[in-house]
This record gives sequence, C-alpha cells and structure tokens, in this order.
Amino acid sequence: MKSSNAFTITAKDKKTKARAGILHTRKGKIETPFFMPVATKTAVKHISPEDLHEMKAKAIISNALILFLRPGSDIIKKMGGIGKFMNYKGINVTDSGGFQMYSEKFLIKTEENGVWFNSPFDGTKHFITPEKNMQIQLDLGGDVAMCLDNMPLMENTKGEIEEAIRKTFNWAQKCKKEHDKLQKNIPKGKKQLLFGICQGGIYEDLRKTSATEMSQIDFDGFSIGGLALGEEKKDEYKMIEIQKQILPENKPCYLMGAGNPIELLEAISRGIDMFDSRFPTQNARRGTIFTSKGKLKILRKEYKTDKNPLDKGCKCFVCKNHSRAYIRHLLLREEATGMRLATFHNLYFLQNLMEKSRAEIKKGKFLEFKNKMKKIYQKNNIPSPAL
Amino acid sequence: MKSSNAFTITAKDKKTKARAGILHTRKGKIETPFFMPVATKTAVKHISPEDLHEMKAKAIISNALILFLRPGSDIIKKMGGIGKFMNYKGINVTDSGGFQMYSEKFLIKTEENGVWFNSPFDGTKHFITPEKNMQIQLDLGGDVAMCLDNMPLMENTKGEIEEAIRKTFNWAQKCKKEHDKLQKNIPKGKKQLLFGICQGGIYEDLRKTSATEMSQIDFDGFSIGGLALGEEKKDEYKMIEIQKQILPENKPCYLMGAGNPIELLEAISRGIDMFDSRFPTQNARRGTIFTSKGKLKILRKEYKTDKNPLDKGCKCFVCKNHSRAYIRHLLLREEATGMRLATFHNLYFLQNLMEKSRAEIKKGKFLEFKNKMKKIYQKNNIPSPAL
Repeated sequence: MKSSNAFTITAKDKKTKARAGILHTRKGKIETPFFMPVATKTAVKHISPEDLHEMKAKAIISNALILFLRPGSDIIKKMGGIGKFMNYKGINVTDSGGFQMYSEKFLIKTEENGVWFNSPFDGTKHFITPEKNMQIQLDLGGDVAMCLDNMPLMENTKGEIEEAIRKTFNWAQKCKKEHDKLQKNIPKGKKQLLFGICQGGIYEDLRKTSATEMSQIDFDGFSIGGLALGEEKKDEYKMIEIQKQILPENKPCYLMGAGNPIELLEAISRGIDMFDSRFPTQNARRGTIFTSKGKLKILRKEYKTDKNPLDKGCKCFVCKNHSRAYIRHLLLREEATGMRLATFHNLYFLQNLMEKSRAEIKKGKFLEFKNKMKKIYQKNNIPSPAL
Repeated sequence: MKSSNAFTITAKDKKTKARAGILHTRKGKIETPFFMPVATKTAVKHISPEDLHEMKAKAIISNALILFLRPGSDIIKKMGGIGKFMNYKGINVTDSGGFQMYSEKFLIKTEENGVWFNSPFDGTKHFITPEKNMQIQLDLGGDVAMCLDNMPLMENTKGEIEEAIRKTFNWAQKCKKEHDKLQKNIPKGKKQLLFGICQGGIYEDLRKTSATEMSQIDFDGFSIGGLALGEEKKDEYKMIEIQKQILPENKPCYLMGAGNPIELLEAISRGIDMFDSRFPTQNARRGTIFTSKGKLKILRKEYKTDKNPLDKGCKCFVCKNHSRAYIRHLLLREEATGMRLATFHNLYFLQNLMEKSRAEIKKGKFLEFKNKMKKIYQKNNIPSPAL
C-alpha cells in the first residue's frame, strides 16, 4: 500500500474509490475517513470536551483567524496550545480563516500578499499574510494546520476565480516555506502537519489547474475547499472527482464544509478521508435529526407525544434516556438543553456513520452500504414545517 | 422529635433554629435542607437530567402555568407525568404559576375566584381558578404541588397586599379541598403533597396574618413567597423569622426564590428547609461563579490566562477538567458550552453547600459554618466589571 509520512492507507473498497487509512499526528493517530465537529472558538456549541470524548470524536476543527482575534493566539499559546486550553485529548485541526473571506463581517480586501481582515469584535484591522497565518496556527498549537487560501465567492466570475486560485497557489508556496522554516528545529514526530487547499469554484478546468499546482507542493495532506456551499450536488461530486484524480493518492484528502450524511458517503466513495461541517450541529438546533431511518423533522406535530427515542437503534445517551416528545418540546421552547441533546445525537450519528463506513470499506462492501443509506435518506427527507 | 406525615426532623442545630430532616414523597425521600435547580419548562438551562443526577440534585422545580400553556398538561399527562417526560429520577416539585402574576407578559387581571392569564405563546386567555390549578398540577404529575397564591407586587400598597393575602388564604382553602377531593382514591404513600404559600410583602403584621391563616390548613408543608425579590436582606430575614415563629414546626418550610449562598445559610439558620432559585444558573451565564473562597467574577481580565479551576477544592467535572481562562473565554464569546460549564459548577456548589449544611447541623456546628462562609463572602464579593 502506498503511504506518505503522515498517512497510511490500510484498506481499499472494491467497487468505489473509498479507502480506509490512518492519519498520524503528533497527538496520536486517527482512522480515516473521519468527521470533525466544528469548534470555531474552541467549543462545539452546547458540547463540552468531555462530550466529545464520550461520542468518540477524535478530531475537531477550530478557526485560526477568529482565535487570533479573540482570545488572541498569544493567550492560547500561553495556555499551552488549543488542546490544553480546551483540555481536549483528541486531534486539533485549525482552519486558516481563509473561509472568513466569504464573510462581509470579516473581509475588507484581498491584496497580492495577503488579506485585510476586520475584527467584528472591536473594529480593528489586521493584514494577514501567509507567513503571519502560519505563525498564528503554530502559536495556536493545533496538530494539523491549513494554508491561507483565497476563498472565491459563489458570485465571482470565472476570471475572478482564476485570479483567486493563482493567489491561493502563490500563498500556499509561501505558507509551506514559512511553516518549514518555523518548525525546522522541531523533531519529526512533533511537527504540526500542513494541508494545502484547492479551490476552483465549479469550473472543471480551474479545479484541474488548482489541484495540479497544489500537488507540486509536498504538503502532508490536501483539502478541497469552496464546495458544499449550496452548489448542486452533481457539481460538487464532479469537482471532487476531478481534483482527486490529480491529487497524490498517498496523501489524505479533506473535503471542507460537508456534513450531510449522504454527501459524506458520496465523497468517501470518491476517495475523501476527512470532513468537517456545522451542518449536523446547526441542523440539530433547528430540529433536523439524523437517524438510521432518514432525517427526522422533530418539530412536526406528529412527535408531540412520541415516546420513542430520536433513533431506535442508536446507543447515544440521548437515545437511551429521552423521547422525541421531550426533545421536540425543548427545541420548540428554544431551551438550551434541547439543543444540547439534539446536537449530541447528531454528532454521535456522524461518528457512528464514519465508523460503519470504515468497517464497510475494510469488508469491500462500501458501495452497498452507501446505496442502502441513500435509499433510506431519499425516502425520508421530509421538509421542515413552518414553526 | 416532632414529625408530620411527610416530614421528619432528624437533627436540630444547637445555636440556631436550623434543622436537618427528611421529606418523604411518593418518589422517595430527600434530606433537608435542600436546594432545587429551576427547570421552568422541564429543563434546567444547559443542564440535562443526566447532569442533575451527576450533581446529586435530588429535587427540581418546574412551573405549572407555563407547562399548562406549552406543551400542555394533557401532553405531559399522556407522557406519564413530568418526571417520566424528563426521565428525571429525582423529586419533581411544581409551582402553581402564582409567581407569573408578577409578570406583565402573563397577568391580565386577578378576580375574586381566580386569575386571568395571557399566553405569551399565542395570545390566548385563560381563567385559572384554584380548583383548575390543582387539576393542572395533578395532571403534570409532580410529587409536590403549590397552592395558587395571589402574588402581590413590590410596588403594591399595604391595602393591596392585605387584599392579596386575603385572596391567597381563600384560594388556599379551595386548593386544599379540591386537592383532597381529586386524590381521595389514591393510596396514602402515592399522593402528591401540597404546600400552602404565605405572603405579606415586608409588613410584619401582614406576614403574621398570612402565616396564622395558612397554619389553620393541614398542608404537607408551607412556603414563604414574595421574598428574595430585591428587598433588603434584613427585611427578608425578619419576615422569615416572623412567619417561621407561627408556622407549625413539624412541617417543612420552603423559602421561594432564594439562591444566594449566604442568603441560603441565613435562611437555614432561621429554620428554612427548602429552596429554589434561578440565581445560580443566571449568575453562571453572566459570569458570577460561586466558590469556597467567595464569588468569582470570571469575566475580569485577571483570569485571562488563569490555569486554575473555578474553585480549587471543588470536585465537579468542570473544576476537575477546565481552567478559569477557558471558561472566561467561552462566556465572553457567549458560547453555550461556557454557559453549560459555569452553570454546572454553580449548581454543584449549591448542592455541596446544602450537603455541608446538613452535616454541620447534625454536628450542632451550623452557626460556626455559616459565620465562616459569611466572612469569606463579605470579603470576596467583587462587583462585576463592565463588559
């Protein structure tokens, strides 16, 4: 089996491009494919680090730019890094904050050598270069860092996206150089990993260019960014296929921002190894529950006195102890406890889905598993009722 | 030792009126004095029933009026009562909703035979008589119910408060009669307990009248209402003393709405057995933490990189695992996880304070314990900084 330093492929599915593997980080190893709950500001909403341990979430992702602004990467560095700050035993991944270019609250403008960000906390302006971003992510002390990418907007013209991937490649080279320099005295097993991010909108040729360029750099892994943003699923899957064909097979590949159960399975079948998304947590708070029988719109009237758990087969503490009726009532009343229970379950469900996926890949039966789940989810995707 | 059916006094302090006892309910017994977290809508904010079990909170209080409006007492009855609805193994107490007369959102007007409430959920109007209120609380299935009282407002004249305690007594008689009637076929150990609520503002004579009148009715326990609402502490304690002198010693006495650590100890020393309040949970969310060294204003700058737990001696999971710096950061960012951690700790602290109080009463050393805590809290009650 092919492998790079940080990644070992342990099994390949028979009928799809799905693979199971192990990502090795300085904080330990983790089996792929895996899903990372989003802890933007060092906490998954309503979920404590103890909960993450209980649901076996062995990696989470936080946001370097936002943490640089508040509480400050200096504070987190003093506290021993993000993992110690949170007292989280799993693997901490940080995103560069490139995604915040997508937000009017943060973005002022992009220049050749970096990006001007506004702090929504106090209105201060910050020029973030690729080099500075690497320093921030090392100060934050995550185990895996992302390059600063130039995230194009959905409404950008093809020309603008072309320009964005040019800058993304330019910055990626600078990130890699600076990251190597800053870590040159750190022993091999103790180094932070660095992933490059591919962009390209939904243009096949630009996705090709971006993947080809990024592949020239010896990153520990590659991310596919700028997808799962509302484009059509067929376009998303097509872009994944195009970039996966070019990206080195022996490196882990991370699809950023995807968290819909079927989307994860489709991406896994195309060779994706890592995921993150606010989708399961946000959906939970709004009453969309992932279950083995499809999505459950828990706010619907029919669950008013339903004594069943959210998902009958599920072994999470929420399903062991609580009824749909109770969680429905709490969510309708916007009670934090309801959000907590629903969030825990949805995240547990995805951890479980990933565990099953790894097992099915090892058995060579992933396609069958994916198709079975897809059929269930197509049938049960009930639209959310008006509140 | 004197005892009533539902209450046994097991120890009396030597130098104060504090006593330790056992309240017997159909769902089991609980040692007094105890503090009940507030689960207005069947959930303590940010805290699951599993958390309540972990912190040994053996009784909680919910609000009958609010639950009657949403999800409806019929729904909760169908679910097997509030305890089963929540899957909470402890003792469920319900307040009548008399307190909602204090709120413009709810109160329309009080009449001789009941009160007109507005539903803030859908604008419907509901006339709640004492009899109807008893039916609601029985439908909700709590283990201890409260009479519908006529809660006077702080700004009411003495004449208005006099009128309110007259109505409160009138309604209390009706409540007791209806409650007995509705439960007449229920075997002795399976009956819901009923407490009468004394009012009287901060007028000594009215407090006397109210306690004297209420004492005529054979309630399972008595509550002191209309205090801990911003009046001066010396007035609050005086009113407690006056009513406790009159109320039957062999019945449990519940001070409604008090949750400040020192306030609890002062009330215990005057013979109070039960408490509830949103004070610890609300304070937690706003950054005021109860500790063995006094109140900690966690949002202050000096805790920015403080690796200490909230309270060094505390054995709660929050103090075992997390730093002041982490919780400060999360609360400043209004992260639900921070609210959860702070809330859990504050409630744990009060459970612990009650446990210690019971032990000190049994040792006859409660006065010394109270004075020690008072000294600590006077020294460390640092005002909250502007955010």
